Amino acid sequence: MADEGMWTLDHLPVKQMQQRYGFTPTPQWIDLVQHAALRLAEGCTGSFVSANGLVMTNHHCANSCLSQISKGHEDYMSNGYIALKQEDEPKCPDVELNQLQSITDVTTQVNAATAGKTGAERVKAERAIDSKLEQSCVNGDAKTWRCDVVTLYNGGRYALYKYRRYQDVRLVFAPEQSIAFFGGDPDNFNFPRYDLDVAFFRAYVDNKPASTPQFFKFSPQGPKAGDMTFVIGNPGSTQRGIPWVQLAAMRDVRLVPLFGLLSEMRGLLWQYGRAGAEQAKEAQEARFYIENSIKVFNGWLQTLADENFVEQKKKQDASLREWMAATPERRTKYGDPWTDLQHAQQRSAELIARYNMLEQGFGFNERGGELFGYARTLVRAAAERSKPDGERLPDFRDANLPAVEHTLESNVPVYPHYEQTLLSWSLEKLRQVLGADDPTVHEVLGKQSPDQLAQQLVSGTQLADPAVRKQLWDGGEKAIEASNDPLIKLALQIDPESRQVRKAYEDDVTAPTQKADETIAKARFDRDGMSSYPDATFTLRLSYGKVVGWNENGKPVPPFTDIGGLYKRATGADPFKLPDSWVNAQGKLDANTPMNFVTDNDIIGGNSGSAVIDREGHAVGLIFDGNIHSLGGDFVYDGSNNRAVAVDTAVLLESVRKVYNLPRLADELTQGHL
Amino acid sequence: MADEGMWTLDHLPVKQMQQRYGFTPTPQWIDLVQHAALRLAEGCTGSFVSANGLVMTNHHCANSCLSQISKGHEDYMSNGYIALKQEDEPKCPDVELNQLQSITDVTTQVNAATAGKTGAERVKAERAIDSKLEQSCVNGDAKTWRCDVVTLYNGGRYALYKYRRYQDVRLVFAPEQSIAFFGGDPDNFNFPRYDLDVAFFRAYVDNKPASTPQFFKFSPQGPKAGDMTFVIGNPGSTQRGIPWVQLAAMRDVRLVPLFGLLSEMRGLLWQYGRAGAEQAKEAQEARFYIENSIKVFNGWLQTLADENFVEQKKKQDASLREWMAATPERRTKYGDPWTDLQHAQQRSAELIARYNMLEQGFGFNERGGELFGYARTLVRAAAERSKPDGERLPDFRDANLPAVEHTLESNVPVYPHYEQTLLSWSLEKLRQVLGADDPTVHEVLGKQSPDQLAQQLVSGTQLADPAVRKQLWDGGEKAIEASNDPLIKLALQIDPESRQVRKAYEDDVTAPTQKADETIAKARFDRDGMSSYPDATFTLRLSYGKVVGWNENGKPVPPFTDIGGLYKRATGADPFKLPDSWVNAQGKLDANTPMNFVTDNDIIGGNSGSAVIDREGHAVGLIFDGNIHSLGGDFVYDGSNNRAVAVDTAVLLESVRKVYNLPRLADELTQGHL
Repeated sequence: MADEGMWTLDHLPVKQMQQRYGFTPTPQWIDLVQHAALRLAEGCTGSFVSANGLVMTNHHCANSCLSQISKGHEDYMSNGYIALKQEDEPKCPDVELNQLQSITDVTTQVNAATAGKTGAERVKAERAIDSKLEQSCVNGDAKTWRCDVVTLYNGGRYALYKYRRYQDVRLVFAPEQSIAFFGGDPDNFNFPRYDLDVAFFRAYVDNKPASTPQFFKFSPQGPKAGDMTFVIGNPGSTQRGIPWVQLAAMRDVRLVPLFGLLSEMRGLLWQYGRAGAEQAKEAQEARFYIENSIKVFNGWLQTLADENFVEQKKKQDASLREWMAATPERRTKYGDPWTDLQHAQQRSAELIARYNMLEQGFGFNERGGELFGYARTLVRAAAERSKPDGERLPDFRDANLPAVEHTLESNVPVYPHYEQTLLSWSLEKLRQVLGADDPTVHEVLGKQSPDQLAQQLVSGTQLADPAVRKQLWDGGEKAIEASNDPLIKLALQIDPESRQVRKAYEDDVTAPTQKADETIAKARFDRDGMSSYPDATFTLRLSYGKVVGWNENGKPVPPFTDIGGLYKRATGADPFKLPDSWVNAQGKLDANTPMNFVTDNDIIGGNSGSAVIDREGHAVGLIFDGNIHSLGGDFVYDGSNNRAVAVDTAVLLESVRKVYNLPRLADELTQGHL
Repeated sequence: MADEGMWTLDHLPVKQMQQRYGFTPTPQWIDLVQHAALRLAEGCTGSFVSANGLVMTNHHCANSCLSQISKGHEDYMSNGYIALKQEDEPKCPDVELNQLQSITDVTTQVNAATAGKTGAERVKAERAIDSKLEQSCVNGDAKTWRCDVVTLYNGGRYALYKYRRYQDVRLVFAPEQSIAFFGGDPDNFNFPRYDLDVAFFRAYVDNKPASTPQFFKFSPQGPKAGDMTFVIGNPGSTQRGIPWVQLAAMRDVRLVPLFGLLSEMRGLLWQYGRAGAEQAKEAQEARFYIENSIKVFNGWLQTLADENFVEQKKKQDASLREWMAATPERRTKYGDPWTDLQHAQQRSAELIARYNMLEQGFGFNERGGELFGYARTLVRAAAERSKPDGERLPDFRDANLPAVEHTLESNVPVYPHYEQTLLSWSLEKLRQVLGADDPTVHEVLGKQSPDQLAQQLVSGTQLADPAVRKQLWDGGEKAIEASNDPLIKLALQIDPESRQVRKAYEDDVTAPTQKADETIAKARFDRDGMSSYPDATFTLRLSYGKVVGWNENGKPVPPFTDIGGLYKRATGADPFKLPDSWVNAQGKLDANTPMNFVTDNDIIGGNSGSAVIDREGHAVGLIFDGNIHSLGGDFVYDGSNNRAVAVDTAVLLESVRKVYNLPRLADELTQGHL
């Protein structure tokens, strides 16, 4: 039996934990991990590690903040940031922390609202019930509370998650990129590893450090081989309960084209960054994201092409399908979701390219830049805010408006040359993917080349200015209609077509897929009982496991690296070049201090920044990656070689004290308060 | 019944042609098409279209020549080239034409030589017999003759192809890139289409235009809808006879990673070319090649993920496999090639990344640039030339040495900044794909970054100079060993490892795959008889068909476009910008002149530049592309929508006379001689 599973806190596998490790969590222990763990709304995990709002997460989860607070010649992303005094802690424009308050089962309500409905009807009904539940949960104070209806077990269960929001989040410390991401893309998802992938934030309330009595005490030593470990965080998504027909479509229809698109963008950004230090900085955040995604896609594609995996998956599907059709009662109860699923996937193949280009914004650089996203958000928000809450697109429901406004008001730097380059390329992709004879392409480009249009849009827009965005936000539909901003006009122009393809995709693909998955999931429950954990949904999960290496091609990989190994691996050339701080500190550091370690905890993207804790609820490490075998974890957990990779708390303390000379932070970590 | 098939001239489907079209080719007709059609050794087709060595092919088949003869501010690739007088026809450094003289069946000899051998033994034996057959065929005059042993029917048959070589090939005329490739990448593989993708070469012998009495007379009108058409050319390769297990490995193990690699390079080159006109020119040839490849890969991946295709393929395999095992005699005769094939594919998955990076040279920019290729060729040639012919790597057998020498001596421009950029990127890929801890990667990079090493290699090498290459070629092993050129040293350094992975790949993958395919192909013959055509092998094939449109989403696509449509499609912005010559000539041109047309001839890459001829053996068009549905033609021919795309001879004549004012060329075309 493997240490498999990403468990919700209200359904922990207490029996397995007791049997395998002789450990049963107390209610206090569970309460602690729930409140000390945080979700970074943009897609990571963090945890409180002092009573005064100190948050530990990854350097790579602080990328946006580090880029955004760098002004002029400053480059905090590369050079790190140290707040020597508390007053030096700058606000991160875009970071929001969510602290889970409660989980309420709302399966009955959701099922009642959607019963018997399909397609567009179902989308509408689900949107309405979600909105109703979320509004009542937020209870008029969306600045403080955030509520999300979460689909668990692919629709086997629905739950209402209520979070406390922290929107005033400031930066305390981040090391240099070259030590945080030592080894760069070559070492990413590999082990042995030597990264200090850490950043510390602080949550503020009313301009003062937040009071956070529930936090993980910081273990100065880190764990030992064989120790039981827990990872508490927000794994983003997994597809382990998904039938093969859906995974096959995911591979062929979605993943492969996206892999090509991102690879192309990677090459573009690589070359863009060679033009100089400023260009390298402009492209840095997108490059990091894309290189990481491509490595993940590679891992997924490998698993999804693995004959053994595919055969096993097909067998499981066939046996469930057989079971569902074995009696007249079951046939009546379940119908034939398998055929529905297949039809939905075929429809997905027809719609996906258009959906990606228009609604996902790949054709307008909504993914690689800022400007078009502002335009679209303003245009959509103006239209949506005039509708009743339950009829809005989910992003614009009252519960989400504070986050939208926050993004629009944040003073994120916009790089015009970068935006123009990426927009030109995106418009080329729009034309390439939809075809030069497509009416929307004709309408957008007219007689202009992508390059000409991009130049005109970026030089003409005012949307880089937060004040202009604020005006348009406050002015609502009238201001949008009156605007002469070329990007606002473009967003308005494509909006009907973009909404149409979204609606078609949701009605013909998402809704029937969800319904079929739900039916299949329910049948699996009826047959097997609810003995397992739900697929990951970027909500709080606990995984248990131990510190343990693995075997690679017959050779054992030990679970720890140390500071001595870091200095041995350094070459002086990127990405194996140490920052000056580490070069200078070498003599002061204990070479035997553990640096990174691996555990067999079952984690996935979104767990980045999660604390690794021990039986006492003390932080002993900081998750920042998985090994290469962990990538298949999206689809199946293999305990023999799937490993989580963490920074040891020992190296965190050693480096904060001796490399960065920050007694203030070191003391707060060891004492648990300011 | 569809107009399927790429037939060898010694096994034409005379019955089908007679039944479907009432046409039976005479021996004279066959003799004409064999000698008028040419192979461009680099990978295209051409044809003689006058008695004085005038050759018609595509502009995109003349890309290398146009780049290579452009010097200083000249850019013949973009601006076209016109030789007003015969003395103005410049030599294309790298073009070699092959004219097929004879096909000799050598199945018995090859089978006898390889009987009972497997793995490395088999590779060696086949190399030895091929060398022996080719040498005896060339008979000491490799400057005039070229002989290749060709594997047909996946090993069901072997044939010795003897060609007359033309190495003095000069450029007569090429139009501007913007009309040759009007619509650029967006229109590539699409229709309606408006391209003048033509170039004319002339073959010279002893510094005089070659005498070529067998040529295609040039039809001034082009064909009509429904006319029977033939395409005679050199389709590069198809995989129609290949079992599914091999195609699945092709998709997952080879195609998908390569698709990512080329996509990345595409983005890099896109951005590289934006730096200025000079950089755009430097990147142009590679960009063209890569964009085209990516579109092809997209088509392949679509077919290889098409459920109907996969199911049909699996069924065909299963039925043949069953037939092969149905009697004890058959089991003894055929053994179990299916399992062998599967093992070979598994081994391929283990070796392919290393093989691509080292031996295919992706890790050293052997694909995107010139310099490392020179180094490797010189290093290999020195070692190989000292061995007996039959023991050499095939590229270095005596029969191939003239082509190798030709490449080394050609004065192809080398762009140092381009080479350095691409080499830096390639070395990064080397490290990424093999891993930072790989011993070869360590050995190559040492403590340097890819960028540092690339800078050092490109600034230090002398190999851009043909005279230096000539010295090293002439000096043989001694000169190579004594050389201090850093690229020669790198090529020497990785050669043992590179040869080793090649040998492993050939022994464990290529040879057993070939043997298994051969056994399966033989079984298919035993069951079905030799009623079909062999998979394409870049050798001369005839396809028959007709001028006909198709239905796209229920709407008919007519088979012709005309000059009027070209002017309507032009926008003034790249890639829909007409060159000045066409803008200025508009008033003079007949708008109803047919421009491009489609036929259902079964063609594939390598057929580029093939003449479309009529029943009389007159040229009526010039193949330059297929429609988007033709891309699946690698694996299966679908007569309902697979279409070849050709330039009409009518527009060729109209434009040569009225746009380019070249009566000399127009007269030669209509009169058939200078």
